[in-house]
Amino acid sequence: MREVAVIGIGQVKVDESWDKSLRELAGDAALSALLDSGLQRVDTVYVGNMMSGSANHQQHLGAYIADWIGMRHAEAIRLEAACSSGSASFRTAVMAVASGQVQTALAVGVEKMTDSPGDEITAQLATAADADWEADQGLSFVALNALIMRRYMYEYGWGKEAFAPFAVNAHANAVHNPFARFHEPTSIEKYLKAGMIADPINLMDASAIGDGAAAAVVVPLDLVKSAGRRVIRVIGSAAATDTIAIDHRKDPLWLKAAYESGKQAYSQAGITPADIDLFELHDAFSIMATLSLEANGFAERGKGPQLALDGEITPTGKIPIATRGGLKARGHPVGATGMYQIVEVVQQLRGEAAGTQVEGARIGMSQNIGGSGSNIITHIFQTV
Amino acid sequence: MREVAVIGIGQVKVDESWDKSLRELAGDAALSALLDSGLQRVDTVYVGNMMSGSANHQQHLGAYIADWIGMRHAEAIRLEAACSSGSASFRTAVMAVASGQVQTALAVGVEKMTDSPGDEITAQLATAADADWEADQGLSFVALNALIMRRYMYEYGWGKEAFAPFAVNAHANAVHNPFARFHEPTSIEKYLKAGMIADPINLMDASAIGDGAAAAVVVPLDLVKSAGRRVIRVIGSAAATDTIAIDHRKDPLWLKAAYESGKQAYSQAGITPADIDLFELHDAFSIMATLSLEANGFAERGKGPQLALDGEITPTGKIPIATRGGLKARGHPVGATGMYQIVEVVQQLRGEAAGTQVEGARIGMSQNIGGSGSNIITHIFQTV
Repeated sequence: MREVAVIGIGQVKVDESWDKSLRELAGDAALSALLDSGLQRVDTVYVGNMMSGSANHQQHLGAYIADWIGMRHAEAIRLEAACSSGSASFRTAVMAVASGQVQTALAVGVEKMTDSPGDEITAQLATAADADWEADQGLSFVALNALIMRRYMYEYGWGKEAFAPFAVNAHANAVHNPFARFHEPTSIEKYLKAGMIADPINLMDASAIGDGAAAAVVVPLDLVKSAGRRVIRVIGSAAATDTIAIDHRKDPLWLKAAYESGKQAYSQAGITPADIDLFELHDAFSIMATLSLEANGFAERGKGPQLALDGEITPTGKIPIATRGGLKARGHPVGATGMYQIVEVVQQLRGEAAGTQVEGARIGMSQNIGGSGSNIITHIFQTV
Repeated sequence: MREVAVIGIGQVKVDESWDKSLRELAGDAALSALLDSGLQRVDTVYVGNMMSGSANHQQHLGAYIADWIGMRHAEAIRLEAACSSGSASFRTAVMAVASGQVQTALAVGVEKMTDSPGDEITAQLATAADADWEADQGLSFVALNALIMRRYMYEYGWGKEAFAPFAVNAHANAVHNPFARFHEPTSIEKYLKAGMIADPINLMDASAIGDGAAAAVVVPLDLVKSAGRRVIRVIGSAAATDTIAIDHRKDPLWLKAAYESGKQAYSQAGITPADIDLFELHDAFSIMATLSLEANGFAERGKGPQLALDGEITPTGKIPIATRGGLKARGHPVGATGMYQIVEVVQQLRGEAAGTQVEGARIGMSQNIGGSGSNIITHIFQTV
């Protein structure tokens, strides 16, 4: 398998984009990535998206986006893995280039959610849960995560305030990210006063939906090695699943798919968690950030909040997370999120993360979660 | 790039499956393919599906199916390219195995359409057209194909009766396929009397929707060469797109994406159209069968119907098509169709196409079309 690298990244601001259509959002991110790469054309376009069929009455985003960005006739398909659709498109691009069938690939994640009323979006998000055993019983995604968080607090004895640092860190970092949805810092006091959504999850535990798109251009490493460009190597790429319904799991507090895909990615990269300089994890809810830190070897079981309380998740800490705001404050346009994470890791490794730059960052990891931990895709990147 | 082979196939009957859920349909096809392959487990599951998010309120089919068939924790994602979603899953499996990242992959196409009322399904199918420029103007897929067919008849002077042999051949072949939706032969007389749907497309020009699933297991060729099993090599795999809206094309009667992906696949295989022993083409409408024959080099432009009138598309003709009933008579459960085509080509090359066996078939081609010719995926297979 040949080695693969990222040579271009692009993104648009996560927002309520009333003035931009689905294709314009994806196109703007894709063309930014192409411009950044210096390439005029790619062989293949992979589009990560979860819900355009229902939210925008538009499926078939491969052909739709490829034509819009001037790649008419290029191969193009859509990947869907709920909230991990974005990184599914990136992983497919990596494998296509690695296979040798394709020389250059563009991965773009896009989601336009704010055209639909909130209750419709909540129902559409619930299609990532098990229709028979979860969604049709009235469980929304917030409710599912509330069940997990409550259990976690009970098992390990944490109070609500222990989760505050996740929101505080995310919002502090987002202030410096022009592509983030929110630019207001928050505090422990504000966290504790935030309105409850599904007890114990309050507004500051939950990420916000939004419209957004992010993209990256993937090529064989040897093609660009001598081009003088700031190239970022993909040194790990792995994915694993778990049951779609949470109650089918032996242990609802252990992200087995995160552990499995993380383990594979570490092994491919030949590293351990201690080598990771920053980790863009999937903080759709603060409990998911907690469980991700534990499943990937950054904290012992039940100790995720301690890492946050100790300040180790900030850009100067031991394992910086949500360095550009994360899902919490950059925003979570679901099918685009995985690509935002990847773009942000690449920014950090290039030294382009103004305001929240992790000093001397050489190895970064992104991990994107679909469903309640049911599809988890991990990538590890390294400076050349 | 290492060579890739198919070692297992499975399918369920295309039908109105009131007694089977989406996961059961996919699971039955997938487990049949696994049984046929002799493997207990695969590394990766690729699910091709177009509309489960709206038709079944269930997205995230990767994790959903992987868990159901006992592949808990395996990598799994869903591929969507409208009606070419099935072959998109197969092509992704081929590239994943070819890349060396994955040793064994299962591709499964599934669609459960008959749970929704017909008008809803028509609207859902229209999400494969351009929402802004086609679907929102009231154009359904039948209407789009009717426009193309009328233009074709005008340009080349064909009458309605010239398209009858496509339906006659498809229905004659389906009689012998236990997995086909229809088992009634038809005739030129019946064709001419069939009810009009969107002039000039009548009931006998249009394929029927349905519930269905089909699957195949893909492995590296060298892994199975000596296993004594009937192995089928994948000697060509290519995809190309075109504009999603038909009116954006220079020539609406030329399937440019079919031509492009066919050309690439022929070149990979080192063959010409004359070497193809059978061709499972995408006869969603008889006009699409016509245009496919022309774009892939089996008939000159404007001469597709002549090939059919001359009897050359039957199992004993020069280029047998729809040998197990095609979309017309096997049925067209959209996201599953591409996998049915592939399963049927493999059956023919294994000599397992009882009743419609193409004698001495060694090389077969499948071609799956998404949208009105906007995403076309071609595969060529050969006996070892």
